[in-house]
Amino acid sequence: MTIKTVSHSAYQELANRFLEIKNYQHLLAMADWDHAAVMPGGGNEARVAAIAQLEGLIHEKVSASEMEGLIQQAEASDLSEMEKASVKEMRRDWHHAVGLPKDLVEKKSAACKLSEHAWRELRPQNDWAGFLTVFKPVLKYSRQEANILSQQMGLSPYDAMMDAYEPGSRSERIDAIFNPVKEWLPGLIQQVTTRQAQEIALEKAVGPFDIARQKDLGQDVMRLLGFNFNHGRLDESTHPFCGGVPEDVRITTRYTPDDFVQAMMGIVHETGHARYEQNLPLCVRGLPAGRARSMGMHESQSLSFEMQLGAHPGFQRAISPLLKKHLGDQKGFNPEVLAFHSTRVNPGLIRVDADELTYPAHIILRYEIERDLINGILEAEDIPAVWNEKMKAYLGQDTAGDYNNGPMQDVHWPCGLFGYFPSYTLGAMTAAQLMRAVRVAHPHLDEEFMRGDFSSYFGWLQENVWQQGSLLGTDELMIKATGETLNPLYFKQHLEKRYLGY
Amino acid sequence: MTIKTVSHSAYQELANRFLEIKNYQHLLAMADWDHAAVMPGGGNEARVAAIAQLEGLIHEKVSASEMEGLIQQAEASDLSEMEKASVKEMRRDWHHAVGLPKDLVEKKSAACKLSEHAWRELRPQNDWAGFLTVFKPVLKYSRQEANILSQQMGLSPYDAMMDAYEPGSRSERIDAIFNPVKEWLPGLIQQVTTRQAQEIALEKAVGPFDIARQKDLGQDVMRLLGFNFNHGRLDESTHPFCGGVPEDVRITTRYTPDDFVQAMMGIVHETGHARYEQNLPLCVRGLPAGRARSMGMHESQSLSFEMQLGAHPGFQRAISPLLKKHLGDQKGFNPEVLAFHSTRVNPGLIRVDADELTYPAHIILRYEIERDLINGILEAEDIPAVWNEKMKAYLGQDTAGDYNNGPMQDVHWPCGLFGYFPSYTLGAMTAAQLMRAVRVAHPHLDEEFMRGDFSSYFGWLQENVWQQGSLLGTDELMIKATGETLNPLYFKQHLEKRYLGY
Repeated sequence: MTIKTVSHSAYQELANRFLEIKNYQHLLAMADWDHAAVMPGGGNEARVAAIAQLEGLIHEKVSASEMEGLIQQAEASDLSEMEKASVKEMRRDWHHAVGLPKDLVEKKSAACKLSEHAWRELRPQNDWAGFLTVFKPVLKYSRQEANILSQQMGLSPYDAMMDAYEPGSRSERIDAIFNPVKEWLPGLIQQVTTRQAQEIALEKAVGPFDIARQKDLGQDVMRLLGFNFNHGRLDESTHPFCGGVPEDVRITTRYTPDDFVQAMMGIVHETGHARYEQNLPLCVRGLPAGRARSMGMHESQSLSFEMQLGAHPGFQRAISPLLKKHLGDQKGFNPEVLAFHSTRVNPGLIRVDADELTYPAHIILRYEIERDLINGILEAEDIPAVWNEKMKAYLGQDTAGDYNNGPMQDVHWPCGLFGYFPSYTLGAMTAAQLMRAVRVAHPHLDEEFMRGDFSSYFGWLQENVWQQGSLLGTDELMIKATGETLNPLYFKQHLEKRYLGY
Repeated sequence: MTIKTVSHSAYQELANRFLEIKNYQHLLAMADWDHAAVMPGGGNEARVAAIAQLEGLIHEKVSASEMEGLIQQAEASDLSEMEKASVKEMRRDWHHAVGLPKDLVEKKSAACKLSEHAWRELRPQNDWAGFLTVFKPVLKYSRQEANILSQQMGLSPYDAMMDAYEPGSRSERIDAIFNPVKEWLPGLIQQVTTRQAQEIALEKAVGPFDIARQKDLGQDVMRLLGFNFNHGRLDESTHPFCGGVPEDVRITTRYTPDDFVQAMMGIVHETGHARYEQNLPLCVRGLPAGRARSMGMHESQSLSFEMQLGAHPGFQRAISPLLKKHLGDQKGFNPEVLAFHSTRVNPGLIRVDADELTYPAHIILRYEIERDLINGILEAEDIPAVWNEKMKAYLGQDTAGDYNNGPMQDVHWPCGLFGYFPSYTLGAMTAAQLMRAVRVAHPHLDEEFMRGDFSSYFGWLQENVWQQGSLLGTDELMIKATGETLNPLYFKQHLEKRYLGY
């Protein structure tokens, strides 16, 4: 009994420490949201210093010298399943922090914030040379981080980075998933674009679309999708994101008067992330087991909303009256026109504007480049050439000299988020597999969707994903929810059904 | 030489520690702004916990055991004037923190945030009983704090609290300033209201005034007043405030469609605070000597903007075209109508709506009540009766049963800000004395104002107040700027001149 009491108090001590860390992460999340969404430019330098210091403090708390002993004691003790799940995540956090010098964490934080801030101005100017000056420190510190983690974890530098976003994810497994896609995707794109070229085009709604009205529309769409406005809000930023904390989820989008789809579908995507966060299990709120499972699982939820549901004719039917209410009555807002345009396949330059079918090509390109960057095989200066080469090979696009719509288009690298990109396509595949399982559980799902009733879908996700938090590993969660681990076959089947009618 | 090196390194160590503290204060200021201006209600509990923890951390850093020794060493060393000024403020910070248990700091922080949040809903419901349940813990912890500081500083509990906002301020001195006001103010109000009752009323502009347009107007007024939008922004909150950090000043106001004056003059007031913050000396940015001098001096700047300048006919002439541009052309926006209404004296219930002349009565009432509350002479339950009695005596108003427009109207007490209220009237008096000094330095100031040229005024404040930071004490600053310490006579002269034409 004595040992158990001691060990259980080790767990209590850990829980208290992680609740303290969670409070600092809350402040960090809010300072980050503010930085991206509302901060005036002149506040940047002071903010960067404050955020870097807070990241250093959090790092110090996670990697404190007593942590390893406490974790070992807790692991050896008689804990509940929930407690065990938290301790597992605590070990992960500790493992990802312990070998890193606090100095490196602070330097990387500051370099990333400065680079992200500069990127917002440099991107529209197509200023690659200017971008390199702020990006190279980010890459340098990211590589230092990756090399330290690599040695500790016995993984390649890139795999060590990727593990932070998708626990257990390894390049070998990603290659085994992505390489077959590289085989079948170009042919499928070809088939679909040929087929779609023969269809009669339906005319799009014509802008300009007032931005204040787009905002009201966006909030109505969020309500339709079950966003809880008591625990979150919608704002604007250069790059849409979902931030904040589960109790207060901050999503953003960006508006243009020419097009309502970009802002609206950005909102649909981020609302998927938001509902996951808002519906994480309350019983372990604030503890590691109560967090979202992984970034792959997070993207599966945003893409369940944006692609599985968002390109479904039932969704088009549901939003049609909202569009007419806010943006005026146009034929372009009729469900069949919306459905037509939501399923167009057009290989293009921009990932966030890409259709569901060409999207994986954008991800595979980024994955291959960032892997080689972090593993030291590729240098920052080499990115544009490799980018162009792969864009030609995978999507038949030429981006020479167009950095704005080429390697400068995403916020991830300027932010030092290396290892994140695979999560998007893992998420798309996971979303397809989850949808198949929902259809098995709810055979009349499509009819429900056509009636504008999405409750079975959300209810199933709530039970099988959101409420699971990090109580299970990704593979275990997928087996429990769908009967098997991630199987990319369902994604291919989904694409063939939606775009070729198989 | 050895001693000096050691001592100077004590200063360096202190400077580094206070720069670290400043970064945490940055995060606190932003979390506070977010809490008051944009946070959805459901985020409150998690935010309160995070803010309380951060306040506890800051307290721990300021009151660290090495601080006293470092401060003593630094004081004994050969420092520049700027360094000496910082060390003086460091000692003040340390003195206000050292005896307080961290636990009390965190508990008070959480009680205040919960009470402030509840107050926003309870006030419109006139729910005094509900308010007492959240306010009593705030009062309890504030008294505990005051009693600890009282023993340490050898002051009364209330004086110890007031010293945090206005260094060196004591009840004895406040009484010596306020008691004469209580003598002459009722008579002056009587004289002015009698006189104004005989004037022919000019018709006000008629609403409703679109809130989006009021916001645009507010930003134009801020530009006119020199607000730097690269280092700050304007938002909305229940109670207007100026928050953030000098690099990123966040001001707020509140809008109603019935009246444009409230929101606009709130903006003018907060812009005064903001320019002080934005123009604090860069050479000591981030260090205690670079902070604003005191809350009395801060209110002198907001009231320099709102009352000295804002009720000047030159200001009315300058904003008239802005009002017409944003809210439409009405006679009510003519300068003479604006000037007429900006100088009306009407004893009323609400401090923030009060005119310049009756305002001090609201402050004296609050000062007397909060002094007795903190000194343990008065209990929370007694407030409404004393409030009503003093409102009758000072302003001839009855507030029995009207808690919303009585003791629940201000955010200060629910927030635990005891000792702040005197700053407003000290500020009004200081502003009058400063204005007199500006007029001596710039004999054609009124003509400049009538041409819409406020540059001499702002330039003088910049040089004599804003750029002084905390390099001098309040009395020294006033002597340097105006030739003498605070002299309430100038305030009386200003009121008599403006309202009776003496």
